[in-house]
Amino acid sequence: MKGTRPGSRPIGVFDSGMGGLTVFRELISRLPGEDIIYLGDTARVPYGTRTPETVIRYSFQNSSFLVKKGIKALVVACNTASAVAIDDLKSRLSVPVIGVIEPGARAAARMSAGGKVGIIGTEATINSGSYQRTMREIMPDADIVSKPCPLFVPLVEEGWTSGKITLSVIREYLNTMKRRKVDTLVLGCTHYPLLKEAISEYMGDDTVLIDSAVEVAKEVRKQLRASGLLREGKKKGKYAFFVTDSVDKFRVIGGMFLGRPISNIEHVDIA
Amino acid sequence: MKGTRPGSRPIGVFDSGMGGLTVFRELISRLPGEDIIYLGDTARVPYGTRTPETVIRYSFQNSSFLVKKGIKALVVACNTASAVAIDDLKSRLSVPVIGVIEPGARAAARMSAGGKVGIIGTEATINSGSYQRTMREIMPDADIVSKPCPLFVPLVEEGWTSGKITLSVIREYLNTMKRRKVDTLVLGCTHYPLLKEAISEYMGDDTVLIDSAVEVAKEVRKQLRASGLLREGKKKGKYAFFVTDSVDKFRVIGGMFLGRPISNIEHVDIA
Repeated sequence: MKGTRPGSRPIGVFDSGMGGLTVFRELISRLPGEDIIYLGDTARVPYGTRTPETVIRYSFQNSSFLVKKGIKALVVACNTASAVAIDDLKSRLSVPVIGVIEPGARAAARMSAGGKVGIIGTEATINSGSYQRTMREIMPDADIVSKPCPLFVPLVEEGWTSGKITLSVIREYLNTMKRRKVDTLVLGCTHYPLLKEAISEYMGDDTVLIDSAVEVAKEVRKQLRASGLLREGKKKGKYAFFVTDSVDKFRVIGGMFLGRPISNIEHVDIA
Repeated sequence: MKGTRPGSRPIGVFDSGMGGLTVFRELISRLPGEDIIYLGDTARVPYGTRTPETVIRYSFQNSSFLVKKGIKALVVACNTASAVAIDDLKSRLSVPVIGVIEPGARAAARMSAGGKVGIIGTEATINSGSYQRTMREIMPDADIVSKPCPLFVPLVEEGWTSGKITLSVIREYLNTMKRRKVDTLVLGCTHYPLLKEAISEYMGDDTVLIDSAVEVAKEVRKQLRASGLLREGKKKGKYAFFVTDSVDKFRVIGGMFLGRPISNIEHVDIA
């Protein structure tokens, strides 16, 4: 998939696992002409409970793999990796690096009517303070409530995206947000959009939910266009997937995330 | 901690993370004179959702680390690693290898009045069929019901070991077991003993819960004694802990699992 002109090279996307396919889905919908290489580090998922040092190390290993494939831009689809590793990646890689935090925070600032913004994510994402810091830079007077929701990922992976248990867990995590009447809630983890309906049911219609995946795809498009690297035209892009654990599991569960069958998946060892 | 006589060498224990400390706790209570080296692969936890190939690879890496430390016996505290890697480990390592499956299954056979045995564990443990196979060898006419309970580990790690949500999840996973009136239930994951009270509340007094940790410690004692390697006497054993992710997190959360403070923890890279 290495092209000769810079614009014809593929976009690289990495995630700790399959959740990043929600970002991949938006990328192919908004940039249909681009070739994309997706790397899911399924053997070392989840990143959200690990220390920053470990997440940074894994992020560099993933990035090197993709850079060696000749990518023209790197999308860090994983919120945790974006939260703790994005500055290091930006300063040390020679390709443009786009994470999910900034686009998500900018969308929240744009959508928030009263400046009361909630942010939810994994422990590592929330504890890094990265979303909170970015929000405050964009919207200094924002009233920010943040909360790690570690059970949301296993709930989604169990397929329990609705029902009594899921609603109880949502109530347990989000009752402070609801009491403080946040008007905008950033879903700061790639798995959370699959709980959108249930979260919306609990929070009510007055709370806007921000799905970072959509915002990231818009940002990638903007940056590629600005640097003359956007690939347009009628030719549809080609996709390749690499995973560090089971190809079969990725095909089945990944298909759920993507909402369509996945092919061209290869196993790769990254360490 | 390398001793000169074989019996004075330490016992090695590995687990995918901190759950194995429930096994460690029983070991120090039943073998107080033994030195023990514990390795928690916290950077790659959990094993329960990974493929057998990956779990086997990780298990060998962990074992080599401990064998190089001069251990006299290896305890595989992780149910998932025991379920998929124990035969390979036994045939390729030169020290005795004790997993958690056989002792747990034997205890279930001993305790079961009517031969109706339930087995719960991670996806990888249950899908491997290892507990089921071992149960059937020991108790050919057993009526076995098995069920993966992937949300139990995150519930324990969130500290939600009781309460409405936990009881709802238990009901969701165990209603078939209850309906089929299992008389003995094997807690086939090191985290599950922390849910013992809640599970017992749901299942009722007629179901005996088997905590493999206790059984493993008895088995280790038996094997060491039989081979003349048991270290007795008044001198208390020394303990060393190695983790592949954060030392601080292990100190705090590990202390919860162990029920007492942990010191002498070192970070190590295993790959």
